This record gives sequence, structure tokens and C-alpha cells, in this order.
Amino acid sequence: MYPGGATGETKERIYHPIWLTLHLWNVILTEELTNYDEAFSPMSAFNNHPLDKMFHPASIAVVGASSSTSETGWVRRLLDFGYKGEIYPINPKVTEIQGLKAYPSVPAVPNPIAYAILNIPAHLVPQAMRDCVAKAVKFVHCFAAGFSETGTEEGRRLQAEITKIASDGGVRLIGPNCMGVYCPESRMTFGEDFPKEIGRIALISQSGAEASRLIFLCQDVNLYFSKVVNYGNAADLDAPELLEYLTNDKETDIIALYIEGVKNGQRFMSAVKQCLKKKPVVILKAGLTKNGADVAAFHTTAVTGSKAAWDYFLKQTSAISTHTMDEVADILQGLNRIKKLWSERVAIVGRGGGIGVIATDICERAGLIVPPFSSETHENLLQIKSDAGAMLRNPMEPKLGMEGAADFYLKGLPIIDQDTETDIILIQMAVDIYGGHTPGLIQNVSAAAYALCAVAESIKKPIVVVLFAGGHTDTVMAVAAARNILTKAGIPVFSGVEAAARSLSKIYDYYRSIENLK
Amino acid sequence: MYPGGATGETKERIYHPIWLTLHLWNVILTEELTNYDEAFSPMSAFNNHPLDKMFHPASIAVVGASSSTSETGWVRRLLDFGYKGEIYPINPKVTEIQGLKAYPSVPAVPNPIAYAILNIPAHLVPQAMRDCVAKAVKFVHCFAAGFSETGTEEGRRLQAEITKIASDGGVRLIGPNCMGVYCPESRMTFGEDFPKEIGRIALISQSGAEASRLIFLCQDVNLYFSKVVNYGNAADLDAPELLEYLTNDKETDIIALYIEGVKNGQRFMSAVKQCLKKKPVVILKAGLTKNGADVAAFHTTAVTGSKAAWDYFLKQTSAISTHTMDEVADILQGLNRIKKLWSERVAIVGRGGGIGVIATDICERAGLIVPPFSSETHENLLQIKSDAGAMLRNPMEPKLGMEGAADFYLKGLPIIDQDTETDIILIQMAVDIYGGHTPGLIQNVSAAAYALCAVAESIKKPIVVVLFAGGHTDTVMAVAAARNILTKAGIPVFSGVEAAARSLSKIYDYYRSIENLK
Repeated sequence: MYPGGATGETKERIYHPIWLTLHLWNVILTEELTNYDEAFSPMSAFNNHPLDKMFHPASIAVVGASSSTSETGWVRRLLDFGYKGEIYPINPKVTEIQGLKAYPSVPAVPNPIAYAILNIPAHLVPQAMRDCVAKAVKFVHCFAAGFSETGTEEGRRLQAEITKIASDGGVRLIGPNCMGVYCPESRMTFGEDFPKEIGRIALISQSGAEASRLIFLCQDVNLYFSKVVNYGNAADLDAPELLEYLTNDKETDIIALYIEGVKNGQRFMSAVKQCLKKKPVVILKAGLTKNGADVAAFHTTAVTGSKAAWDYFLKQTSAISTHTMDEVADILQGLNRIKKLWSERVAIVGRGGGIGVIATDICERAGLIVPPFSSETHENLLQIKSDAGAMLRNPMEPKLGMEGAADFYLKGLPIIDQDTETDIILIQMAVDIYGGHTPGLIQNVSAAAYALCAVAESIKKPIVVVLFAGGHTDTVMAVAAARNILTKAGIPVFSGVEAAARSLSKIYDYYRSIENLK
Repeated sequence: MYPGGATGETKERIYHPIWLTLHLWNVILTEELTNYDEAFSPMSAFNNHPLDKMFHPASIAVVGASSSTSETGWVRRLLDFGYKGEIYPINPKVTEIQGLKAYPSVPAVPNPIAYAILNIPAHLVPQAMRDCVAKAVKFVHCFAAGFSETGTEEGRRLQAEITKIASDGGVRLIGPNCMGVYCPESRMTFGEDFPKEIGRIALISQSGAEASRLIFLCQDVNLYFSKVVNYGNAADLDAPELLEYLTNDKETDIIALYIEGVKNGQRFMSAVKQCLKKKPVVILKAGLTKNGADVAAFHTTAVTGSKAAWDYFLKQTSAISTHTMDEVADILQGLNRIKKLWSERVAIVGRGGGIGVIATDICERAGLIVPPFSSETHENLLQIKSDAGAMLRNPMEPKLGMEGAADFYLKGLPIIDQDTETDIILIQMAVDIYGGHTPGLIQNVSAAAYALCAVAESIKKPIVVVLFAGGHTDTVMAVAAARNILTKAGIPVFSGVEAAARSLSKIYDYYRSIENLK
């Protein structure tokens, strides 16, 4: 099971407080300082920025490594995910964990440690942090919870203490109360099921569970990440600095942020503005409602800021503002696969009738336009189309059935590509209606998807596809197969017309706004 | 394959114009008039209303019955669906269709005909209609398209002609350009895959494809229909009259409408107001945007009316206004399963952290409130809850994992049921996050669903469940299983927090508005 929060492993932790105070924190400083440079492999020198090494550390110590064989701890997870650097399990009770030599303490590790994960109870973190300072560990990911987010005086005191130790000692602190780093390139991960594929999207997230959701939502549409960091209480590393780093990251084209609050609003605003000169920024600001803000304050101790201030902020920038991770995934897919959107005029290809009327309403409500085709387009469509009663206007109804749809994609889309009245092609495959409950459904829908991929290569207008599955096993499977075929070919797929229209509208606004900045 | 519109079978139609003019329309009037009363079985006398017999006809003639054995025509569909009345296939070229004796013409049928389906080209419909008048057929469903919706003078003329023949002859006309009636009680259907289960929801829909979508969307959550009618161009039967009938229908508790336009706005307004005194009304008014209205005009020749007029209309009544069929399905489920909603104060049980923050934002944005629990609730939750770092406030985080969730449902929901600050319980099962990608997932999620069903019986507050699947086969299957378990037990299940919050908010508004009417 994937540990969905900082509470996942606490009950299995193997450190005993008495042991820790007696044995763990013997500082051996000299050797580590000598070996400092060796701790970072050449592979990490991507941007010549200090934070590079947070995503590409040459070695990782897991302080509080689980000796359990029945559950997947941090060591097992890194091994399974293929992390190629050195892993040092720290656990005084055993000599071996997951086939690796276990050390009784951080100082006992003979080699340099680039990155440490603290999987120990909160009250033991200060001493562990001192040891990491002494060992010249550059990055400490404090997985442990039990700090400011508890709302207690002791929690706040502990967080202030570890932050000061880290700051004084030159250690960068990720967290506390967070899942840390996922970087498929270096094979660091906090989810054992995360994809190993390397993408060009970065995520800065204050929530670990929402980060996981986004990673899986994107995987469903073959969209992958360069770097993800979940930084929880943000005692040290916070969104502005991470964004500044990713702005110049050569591995990243698009940046998404899940934010509950930031400590330095001015720096954040500036970072967003700087980033937008180079890359799109998608922001999910959580805790914008009254009780949402209270919950966020409890979750990561974020000072969420007033709704008015955030509304002003989000309007001031060209960042794309979103409300849910599902929407973030949709926008990321659109940004990644539609390189430029220069118009809001949509041609809808799919079912006509009431489905076309509703799709038109949804698009126009979202700020798009669904104009009639030119008379030339209409004439050309007449040439290839003979079904009685079908709609040749926009929304356009292909011949019925999946074979009819596939046939129309090949013959009709090149005509619609030439239409002077529309600039985007939105295709509703409507598997739940006219393909449902028939033998050979997966094959037929897949064939239509392949036909679409084949013709899409020669179509100049952006194409987006809506694939709604409904709840039947056969339509779900058919949609999953088609979604995989289409997204692998780089065609964005949305789960409904609402999601597609909302995303297109926001992406169009973004490109228009960026254009105005120039 | 399900024929998704009036164009589905035209290419296979077997009537030949020459034959029709020579042989079909010999009127044999006397016998039919004599047998008129016998044409309606006792089963139809539900409401003592003339339209009862439209949904419960004792016999159906399929004019233009397909003799093809490879495709499913109207006759095969009625047989497969178990229609118990007499079926008279009309086709002059064969003597038997699907094992039934075929007749060369309507007049050639020796027995009375209660209901006729016209599956013939548009230009042959006037003569067929005259034959039906002569045969004293009470209801004619004109499946054929090619009338006003073509936008041609000839189409308009044809529609006016058949409407006059029907009206003069005392025949009620359904359509043209529509799918007609689905009534699981009488086993009439226009979709061969529609469920046979009888429910207590009626649908009046101008779109056949959207009607099908709603039927399948509802089937996914074990929600069924009493009566569905798709009436297309509404040349005769229109929404106001159908609504008046269903207002007094003993088989129907809730009425949904998909409308592109109505001819008599005054009568419609009055019908909606009258109905709301007895039953909830859910309206999807399509064609409310500029181009949407143009498309609707093309689809069913509806005069859609101005957006301002409809906005005024929808505000004047307590009818629940919706934008998509997915939303209609959600609202119907809520109305059917939450008998009364007296508050907007929601307790969220599920994942805490960022997922809880976003859920809170979504609920509050939709007009609901997510207040903190009372201190007493907090104390009681502390007694049953020990996971470090978990959130005991609202949103409430149960123990992690599906076993943890199931355990919490049994022990924690009775506590939340007693909370004085909240009145609705929204449960996020979050299968896509904390149950994903593990062996035994379906079993674990199903066990949690059963635990929820068990405890729900003794919970007084309305419970709604959010089950989001994501795109992985295992989570999709687990969610499908859990959805089935929960909805069979009468617990409403929504596919996301947004859908649940929007539905709860609209249902709350409805009950409040109805209360004010009293």
C-alpha cells in the first residue's frame, strides 16, 4: 500500500528513544567534509543550481528504515523503483535491511550522504537533524509529522527548532510532514506505483495525496513528470524558491502548483511572473473558502491568505488558475499537446441531435464559440455524406456507428481542417451511446482511434477528443483502450465535454494573455 | 447496435414506393371500430387517462418492419425486450418476420392495432397515417425523420400534412423524428439494452440520444424509470401535455425533462407549477446559448426561446435546472435516495490533507458549509482514533487503508451522526489514492462498502458517497463493485466531490423552495 501521508509508517517505526539518545548522534565530521563533492554524481549537473542535487542525489540515507519484510518502506520503495545511487538504511536493531547493510546511525555510515529521509518520531528529529548537519548532508526530507500542523505549542516549538538547526548548519529542509521528491530520471519516488516514464512537467505540491492523484491522473493519459516535490509545512523550502528553480530547469516545460499558502507573497508573485516569461504555470490554490482556509491551516499550517488577495494575485498574472486536480490534469494535457491556441472557434464532430446541442451550450458557456461551418465546408461534407437526417452543420454528425465514425475521420476531418469558420476540432466519440453493449466494441473503438491518429498527423488544427465511458465494463474497457491509443499519439483526451471546453477556454485565455505580455 | 437516431434504419428499409401506392392502403374500417375497446388491455388502466395506453398498448404494428436477420429492428427489439402484447410486422415482401406472421399492410391486419411505429421514408408517412386513422390506431410513433428538422419547405409541408391527418382522425402523434416510448412495465423499448427494471422516474425528452444516455447513466447507479418518451419534433404531443399526464401518474415520483423548446410556454409554466406541488421536476433546457439555440432549431425545429425568458422561467419555478445529462442523473439519484434535505451543513469523511482542503473548497463554492465538528464530537472521535497526524476535525480522516476506512465507518459514523454542527455525511472512499494498485483491492473496497451499508441503516443523517475511479483497471473494477453494492442499498454514489456538492446544493435549494411554497 502506498503511504498516503506522513502517518503511514509511524506505527511501524523501529527506533527506540533510549537507543537514540545513547548511540545515534556521534558526530564524525572530518571525513564527510572531505568527501563532500564526491557525494554528488555528474548526472546531477543539469542546471548548475544547488537544488539540482535535491532531485539527483548520489546517495540517500533512510533514518528509521523499516526492517519489516511485509510492508513497503522507504528502502524497499527506492530499490524497487530503481534508484541507482547508494542507499544507507539506518536502523540500530538490525545489520541488514532489504539486502543492504544497515548502519546503527548516520555518523556510522562510512561514506558521504547526499540526502536523508527522516522516518522517525517528531521528538527525535532535532537530534537527527544535528547529526545530518555534522555529516554535511545537504538535503533532509522530514517525512515525519507531528510539528506545527498539530496546532500544539510543542509542535510549533519542535518545528522552529529543527528549522534553525538546518538553517544554521547549511542543510536544506524539505517539510516536515511531507512525502518529498519524485523524480523518474533519478528514480527517486514516494509512491511505489508511480510511473518510471520521464516527462517534462513539474509539480510543486503542498499535499502529498493530491500530488499522487495528479501523477496517476496524468499517467492515465500517458502524461509524465520531470520533477515532483511535496514540501508539506514548508518550514524551509517553499513554493517561491522551488518555482524559481524550475523556471530555469532544462528538464521542465510546464509547472503546476498545489498551494495552501506561501510565506513570502511578494517573492511568489515575482517568481510566477518570471516563470510565465518562459513556461506556463498552472496553480491550484486550495483553502480559498472560509472553512477550506481553516482546514488548510490545520493541514500544513499554511497562512492561506484572504480570498480577495488571492483573487487579485491570480488575476494579476497569466497563470492558469484551477479548482481541482482533475482540472489541473486536463490543463496540463492541453498545454503539453496543444502547442498554441489562437482562437476559441470550435468545430464539434461527434453525435449531433441533443448531444450536439448540449455540447454547443457547454462550449459557449465556457467562453468558446461554435459557429456554423462555411458554405464551402457544407458543400464538401455533402459530397462524402449521405445518411438521411444526419447533421452536416456544426456540430457535425459522422455516419453512425464506430465504423461510420472511423470512415468520417479519414474523409471528413481534412474538410473540416479547411473550414474558415472554425479553428479547433473537438471530437466526441460517444462510446457510451452508439457503441455501447455490442460485440467487438473494443476492437471497433480502437480501430476508430487508430483512424483518428492516422489522419491527425496531416490535420493542422488542434484536435481534442472527448471519451466518456459510463459505468459498463465493456464501454469502460473500450474507452481505456482508445484513450491509450490516442494519448500515446499525442492527442489530448478528456473525460467529458465540460472538462474539454473548460480546459480549452483557459488555455486560450493563457495564450492570449501571454501574447499581450509581449 | 442501438439505433441512435431516426436515421439508424432508413438505409435498410424494405418498402418500395410503387408497392406502397398499389397495395398498402386499402382501408378496412368497420371491424377495427368494433374492436376498438379490446385493443387496450386492463393492464393499461393505471391512471384512467387517455395517455396511459400510449405506454401500455395491447398491440403494436411495426410499419416497415425489417426482414433482415442480421440487424436488430423494431420487431426483434420488442420481442427481445419481452413486450407481451401482439406485434404485427407490416412488410409486403415477406410472410414472416422474426417468427411472426407479417402482413402486407395495416388494413390487412385482422385485429385491432393500438399503437403503430412508422419505420418508412418520410414521403410515405402521410398515406400510412391515413391508414392508421382508418384502422382507428390511437397512437402513431413516427420514427421516420425527414420533416421540419430538414429545414426544407417540403419537410415542413410533410410535417403539417401528417399532423393534420392525425389530428383530424383522432390519432395522437409521437414525433416525427424520434425514438418513441420506453416503458419497462409494458416492455416497450427503443433500446435493446435498456434495463428491464421498473423504477419511479419519468423522462420527457426531445432527444433520443440524450434519453439513452440518461437511462444508461442511471442504470450505472441502479436507478430505473417508470416511463420515458422521446417526442422529437413535437408536431402533436409536446412537453406540457406529457408533464400534465405524468404529474398524476401513479407510477412516477420524479420527472426529468430534456427540452429544446415548447410551443405553448404558458401551458408549460402552468404544468411545471402544478407538478411541483406533487413531485420534483428536473429540467435540462438545451439551446440556451446563441449557437446552441441555432443547433436545437435544426435538430427538432424547436423555437428555443430567449435565454432571458428561460432564465426568468426557471427562476419563477422551483424546478431544478441543470446543464448536462450527467448532472440530471446525479440530481435524480439524490432526489430518489435523499428523501429530505433540511440543511447545507456537510461532514466530510474520507481523506484529510490536501484532498480534504479541496473537498471543503468545492462544497463551500457550491453553496454548502463544512463547519468544524462540535467539541463533543471531537472528544468522542479521539476515543476511537489513534493514528498519529490524522485529522479529527471536519473533513475527518479515517484510519488509512480500506480496512481502516471500514473500521471507521462502523465506529465513527454513529459519532458523526450525533454531531450537532453537521447534517449531511459525505464520504470520499478515495479508492484511486489509498487503495490503488494493491492485491485484493476489489475485495477490500467491497468489504468497506458493505460495512458502510451495514452502519448506514442506523444513521439518521443523509449519507452520500463519492467514488472516483481514475483510469486503472483495478480501481475502475473496485469502484464499479462498490458502486453497485452501495446504490443497491439505496446510498447515492457520485463520481466526484464536485458532482456530489452541486447536486446536494441544488436539492437543498429545491426542498427549501418547496417549503416556502407551502
